[in-house]
Amino acid sequence: MMTTSEWDKLSERLPLWLEESRRHSVNGAPASYIPELAHAPADALGITIASADGRQLTFGDCGISFTLQSISKVFTLLLALMDQGEEGVFRKVGMEPTGDDFNSMLKLELVEPGIPFNPLINAGAIVISSLIRGQTPAEKTGRILAFFRELTGDPALTWNEQVRASEASTAHRNRSLAYFLKDNRVLDEDVEEVLDVYFRHCSIEATCQHIAKLALVLALGGKDPATGRQLVPRRYVQIAKSFMITCGMYNASGEFAIKVGLPAKSGVAGGILALVPGRYGIGVIGPALNDKGNSVAGVQLLQTMSEACDWSIF
Amino acid sequence: MMTTSEWDKLSERLPLWLEESRRHSVNGAPASYIPELAHAPADALGITIASADGRQLTFGDCGISFTLQSISKVFTLLLALMDQGEEGVFRKVGMEPTGDDFNSMLKLELVEPGIPFNPLINAGAIVISSLIRGQTPAEKTGRILAFFRELTGDPALTWNEQVRASEASTAHRNRSLAYFLKDNRVLDEDVEEVLDVYFRHCSIEATCQHIAKLALVLALGGKDPATGRQLVPRRYVQIAKSFMITCGMYNASGEFAIKVGLPAKSGVAGGILALVPGRYGIGVIGPALNDKGNSVAGVQLLQTMSEACDWSIF
Amino acid sequence: MMTTSEWDKLSERLPLWLEESRRHSVNGAPASYIPELAHAPADALGITIASADGRQLTFGDCGISFTLQSISKVFTLLLALMDQGEEGVFRKVGMEPTGDDFNSMLKLELVEPGIPFNPLINAGAIVISSLIRGQTPAEKTGRILAFFRELTGDPALTWNEQVRASEASTAHRNRSLAYFLKDNRVLDEDVEEVLDVYFRHCSIEATCQHIAKLALVLALGGKDPATGRQLVPRRYVQIAKSFMITCGMYNASGEFAIKVGLPAKSGVAGGILALVPGRYGIGVIGPALNDKGNSVAGVQLLQTMSEACDWSIF
Amino acid sequence: MMTTSEWDKLSERLPLWLEESRRHSVNGAPASYIPELAHAPADALGITIASADGRQLTFGDCGISFTLQSISKVFTLLLALMDQGEEGVFRKVGMEPTGDDFNSMLKLELVEPGIPFNPLINAGAIVISSLIRGQTPAEKTGRILAFFRELTGDPALTWNEQVRASEASTAHRNRSLAYFLKDNRVLDEDVEEVLDVYFRHCSIEATCQHIAKLALVLALGGKDPATGRQLVPRRYVQIAKSFMITCGMYNASGEFAIKVGLPAKSGVAGGILALVPGRYGIGVIGPALNDKGNSVAGVQLLQTMSEACDWSIF
Repeated sequence: MMTTSEWDKLSERLPLWLEESRRHSVNGAPASYIPELAHAPADALGITIASADGRQLTFGDCGISFTLQSISKVFTLLLALMDQGEEGVFRKVGMEPTGDDFNSMLKLELVEPGIPFNPLINAGAIVISSLIRGQTPAEKTGRILAFFRELTGDPALTWNEQVRASEASTAHRNRSLAYFLKDNRVLDEDVEEVLDVYFRHCSIEATCQHIAKLALVLALGGKDPATGRQLVPRRYVQIAKSFMITCGMYNASGEFAIKVGLPAKSGVAGGILALVPGRYGIGVIGPALNDKGNSVAGVQLLQTMSEACDWSIF
Repeated sequence: MMTTSEWDKLSERLPLWLEESRRHSVNGAPASYIPELAHAPADALGITIASADGRQLTFGDCGISFTLQSISKVFTLLLALMDQGEEGVFRKVGMEPTGDDFNSMLKLELVEPGIPFNPLINAGAIVISSLIRGQTPAEKTGRILAFFRELTGDPALTWNEQVRASEASTAHRNRSLAYFLKDNRVLDEDVEEVLDVYFRHCSIEATCQHIAKLALVLALGGKDPATGRQLVPRRYVQIAKSFMITCGMYNASGEFAIKVGLPAKSGVAGGILALVPGRYGIGVIGPALNDKGNSVAGVQLLQTMSEACDWSIF
Repeated sequence: MMTTSEWDKLSERLPLWLEESRRHSVNGAPASYIPELAHAPADALGITIASADGRQLTFGDCGISFTLQSISKVFTLLLALMDQGEEGVFRKVGMEPTGDDFNSMLKLELVEPGIPFNPLINAGAIVISSLIRGQTPAEKTGRILAFFRELTGDPALTWNEQVRASEASTAHRNRSLAYFLKDNRVLDEDVEEVLDVYFRHCSIEATCQHIAKLALVLALGGKDPATGRQLVPRRYVQIAKSFMITCGMYNASGEFAIKVGLPAKSGVAGGILALVPGRYGIGVIGPALNDKGNSVAGVQLLQTMSEACDWSIF
Repeated sequence: MMTTSEWDKLSERLPLWLEESRRHSVNGAPASYIPELAHAPADALGITIASADGRQLTFGDCGISFTLQSISKVFTLLLALMDQGEEGVFRKVGMEPTGDDFNSMLKLELVEPGIPFNPLINAGAIVISSLIRGQTPAEKTGRILAFFRELTGDPALTWNEQVRASEASTAHRNRSLAYFLKDNRVLDEDVEEVLDVYFRHCSIEATCQHIAKLALVLALGGKDPATGRQLVPRRYVQIAKSFMITCGMYNASGEFAIKVGLPAKSGVAGGILALVPGRYGIGVIGPALNDKGNSVAGVQLLQTMSEACDWSIF
């Protein structure tokens, strides 16, 4: 399906698009609520595109490594589905976008039965962390890490301890969410143990190459691009991609669906994972965020590319 | 892309799927808030599938005609886009799913600047009605009707006057929404005039064949299936399909994306418009609604078909 | 109970207190949402105190006449109680402060059974207007006017037609509230007819002397200060005073209870009615409002007086 | 001011009123969310009235001791005011009733600047606990206990360790509130340390006699009924009584103001503290709660008494 001319066009035009998009960084700023993230270079922008046929393009500030943050939630969801099945997962998290901020507690209080609306908002991702199989936080974290290492093919992937510690010590809102969930009997486990797992997977450090590789596995319906082996059941990847369209870009997901039209997930460190079904996995890093929590320049770059290549799934 | 075997399978299996799905009707009931709709036969279920190559399948209670209700909102959105452009429309309605009921007013009060979150909830669709070009309600309604007649190819299509009158006399919540929008300066026009347009397009009476035809035009990116003529700009169809995925099934849209995975729009008379991109337009009628306002049996039937034929866009 | 020395102190000190309080007007501005009110002199401040023994003090800009606005709601509540009894009234409005803005619709949507929380917020006062006995809006309005004329002893009291017309043509939020109430089946009557009554009693034009006289009747438990005749049943006055403490000053009522400690009701034209039980009725006018909708200088003046004279009921 | 005949009437009629009120217990149930409270006898009802002149009446199940729960919040507020002054306290908690449940988090998220609306809802009382002077939780708790012992004159007063432990291990919602407050920077201290203080003062065990004595001190403007010594500054007692009227009975405070008209504070163990200004302190225990969290029989008994004796402050 991929045409040589498209790959050539991308190779040729991306440097220009990247510089044009980078300029939009001034309209945002790195996340400040996790102190460790505030130090990121505000105008950085890098992209890696991994193609199903094994080719790869990398432009801009791709040397930067950054923490996955919410991008990790797509993969803990996949692992929870593999561990608990659809029924086990959807008994505890819903399937709907919320229209509220990613750390909002309104619907937990207002909408019966008080389960998180979806697995990509903070409340939902915390519940998902609790559903990962494992007797201890360390065992759960180990399994998550092993999953990421398998998907990326990088056995050295691990969390950034400084970011993890920074998050753990300042995540009062997440603690508030977790205790609310425990009060609603959605979370049975010890709150600090669940959050420990959550903070660790959010703090996994990666590069655009890693993200592109993760995205490519999803683009291929769960198959390893090199070997064709089914790493994740296709049905679960389908579920993940649905959520990425309806809730992947916080409460700017609708806008992203209209303007870019690709399954994607952003993180507050400035990363974006996006995919062109069957064809490409894309990793973007751009630390300056807009008020919705998405990389300003990253979204701009993806929009430019999607329009130019007519990638929207709609 | 369509294989003969799939069409044959559909032809053969649909009668059975339809009867199995029909049984789910007992878990719902026809809408009661518009008195005229409460009389619909609760266990009716009918479906029409129109194929891009001109073939058509019709099963079940397809003789029933019903009012479009919210299904019409997809097309008034398209017409408003054709009349005002993207900028003109999105200055007054947002692009995000809400997670709230379709007639909720919470976000109008809570979220600045108080514009409806998307064009498919009631508040948004009322604003869209105001954006249709025309000096008078009659002129706007005339243009909407002409648009529907062009898309369906049926010059006799018109609204059901009894349903329109029933809605107009009981739509206190919609009046409340409209006056709130006027107070927020999102709506400048006379409220009753805007609502008159709104009630009329919601009351347009159609059959599954009409819905399937409308859906097929969207499935073909705005092109007339017979002539290939571009009836609606492809970009606007893309926008409409994005909204159908993120907000088309009220606040069960996320679940529908996961379980069915097709752009769709439901109406409280029990109709559902769904499409398989590039291939099929589908019209379903099943008046018994679940608590989210979607046809119970209709959703079930679409899920069965989508799973069997692997139609999900994800 | 009133001591001569207190009256002397008031006579002597009030001019100074008034000028000191007037300076606070710069921290507010006349209401702008009813166009006709925006023209009021921003730094005006006037006060009348009517004593149970027939004496009266008047200082400052008491020549100004202004519309009662929300102050009228205390008296329509009394009339509705006289017309329908406690049970008839409290079937349709609650008894609780809301913590929300006076025109908020949140609780109508969120809290079953969707009746207004109290009769002094807009939603509640609109319902109260519907409970006034009378076959027509004119008859209801006539009875309200007669009630005000009896209490004030001024047969010429009437509404300001310009303000009424200004409110009627811009009150989209009130229309929104009223239609929501109708949808919730709290309001059965024609919305425009109920609002017509509501706008007229809000637009009744009065002076500080009128307000002080109205307040004195309440201070005396419903008795005419001159004749001792029971104009309003004492129990209903008790109810009204309870509401004035818990909800009389919009969502700054709690603060007013703590800082001033007197039953009071404010209006967005800048008027405040306050009372010292058994002793004084007070009318204040100061058009510059704070962000809660209360007269900045008026509240300041009442606080100064209450502290100096130890008037708090707590 | 107290007439002999009123005291005689109370002595004579109270046994009957008490039995009539007790019957209302069937319309409620003991609190279940703190496991230890669920064991209380559902139809118990007891009352103590302490008079300013030293007399005391006790009827019904006054042998029962119960935990203060929210009743304690009035006194931690007083102590915080004595420790930090009005400015120090009201920088961190507001003065307004909320209309929401006592453990609601809605307004913390929705209303800037995210401080609790008043000191009697859980969020507010937790902040108040943090404002009590003391280097350690033990020191704060010690000072609170000393304050209660001074006011009641009972040096043996202390918390019920079983209830405290029960609360501490199940109070997920309070932890959620506290972490939200910490995220909003309203709470700076360690959450578990603040909650430790909070759980201890909520678990102080008392009888109706204790409550009546506490109430009498408030009824006398902060003075010791025996010695006339000013135990609490009168201004702070005034503030506390204002809050008791506007927010003392959870979100049934408005109804209580209208039907009973006395400053009061209830607790979920079934206790109610009420006072008749200048005259009586009243302690009531009745474990069966209505859906607002107030003692069903206790409220009924207070209403009967207040009506019969014309005690309403309004």
